[in-house]
Amino acid sequence: MCHVGFVANDRPFVIPTTYGRVGDALYVPGSPASRMLRTLSSGVDVCVTVTLVDGLVLARSAFHHSINYRSAVIVGRAVEVEGLDEKRVALDAFVDHVVPGRAVEARPPNDRELRATIVLRLPIDEASAKVRTGGPIDDDEDLPLAVWAGELPLRTIAGPPVADRGVDGPPPDYLTGYRRGANE
Amino acid sequence: MCHVGFVANDRPFVIPTTYGRVGDALYVPGSPASRMLRTLSSGVDVCVTVTLVDGLVLARSAFHHSINYRSAVIVGRAVEVEGLDEKRVALDAFVDHVVPGRAVEARPPNDRELRATIVLRLPIDEASAKVRTGGPIDDDEDLPLAVWAGELPLRTIAGPPVADRGVDGPPPDYLTGYRRGANE
Repeated sequence: MCHVGFVANDRPFVIPTTYGRVGDALYVPGSPASRMLRTLSSGVDVCVTVTLVDGLVLARSAFHHSINYRSAVIVGRAVEVEGLDEKRVALDAFVDHVVPGRAVEARPPNDRELRATIVLRLPIDEASAKVRTGGPIDDDEDLPLAVWAGELPLRTIAGPPVADRGVDGPPPDYLTGYRRGANE
Repeated sequence: MCHVGFVANDRPFVIPTTYGRVGDALYVPGSPASRMLRTLSSGVDVCVTVTLVDGLVLARSAFHHSINYRSAVIVGRAVEVEGLDEKRVALDAFVDHVVPGRAVEARPPNDRELRATIVLRLPIDEASAKVRTGGPIDDDEDLPLAVWAGELPLRTIAGPPVADRGVDGPPPDYLTGYRRGANE
């Protein structure tokens, strides 16, 4: 998921949502923002941030505790996607971003569903990334302290797929072999 | 981690960071915001969003794909913490939020470190929470489709602790038995 930030009534809001990337465009569902914004037609300033947590960093000193993570921050003006064809591309991207290869198997969206979906397109023009890796960086005078220090790696794993009622057959390979970020 | 949203030059920004809760106050490091804001002295409108992803929801139709997650959105005016005693409380909360029980073991922050730390206090007055659980909700006419549908549960697990150079002794129990959200 990503976190989409936008301004409504001069105040910031941050909403978690899904997203998809197609080339140099990022697509995000516009529904969270549209509820709070009077119009999307002229575009809306957004900030889309994606963060993956990789580990906890325990230093000898409280001050130098940290978190290992990777984040990308994309800022710009998002515009509402009008055409149904582009909305279809965006919806496929949402689905395939979460589970690569899924979009061609699911029943595709029909025109009614596409019209009901608000999609924003954000050009990936202005972005920054931040990565922290490795162990703690303590002050030299703290190194002799008898405090355990190091990193606790974290990762996301999938449990066994849970079939919906009425579903026959085994879960598809892309679920049993799922790894977060396998499509990155 | 949480995502802190704020407005600078009329544009939204969303930055991942750590946080801690003490009673009805949420503490977040102010350094990301302070770089972009002229002054924190009168307070700053922020939105702090915390999201935990619990699973992927695969529907028979692309349109009804979803994500199971829990999120909390807190909005309000954050003020900079001035007193060193309260900063100390906040720093302990940052550390203990990530690894409960850790703050009393690490070398406590000294006054110099506390002065170098910008901390914002956000009262938890206005907040909303959203939880999605369970399987997909397909349209009735899609139920006969031969498309696997269900949920892929996700969870965060810790790998073996990695000791920093020069650290003797086994990792503490709170790391070998670490579960994300054990303190929630």
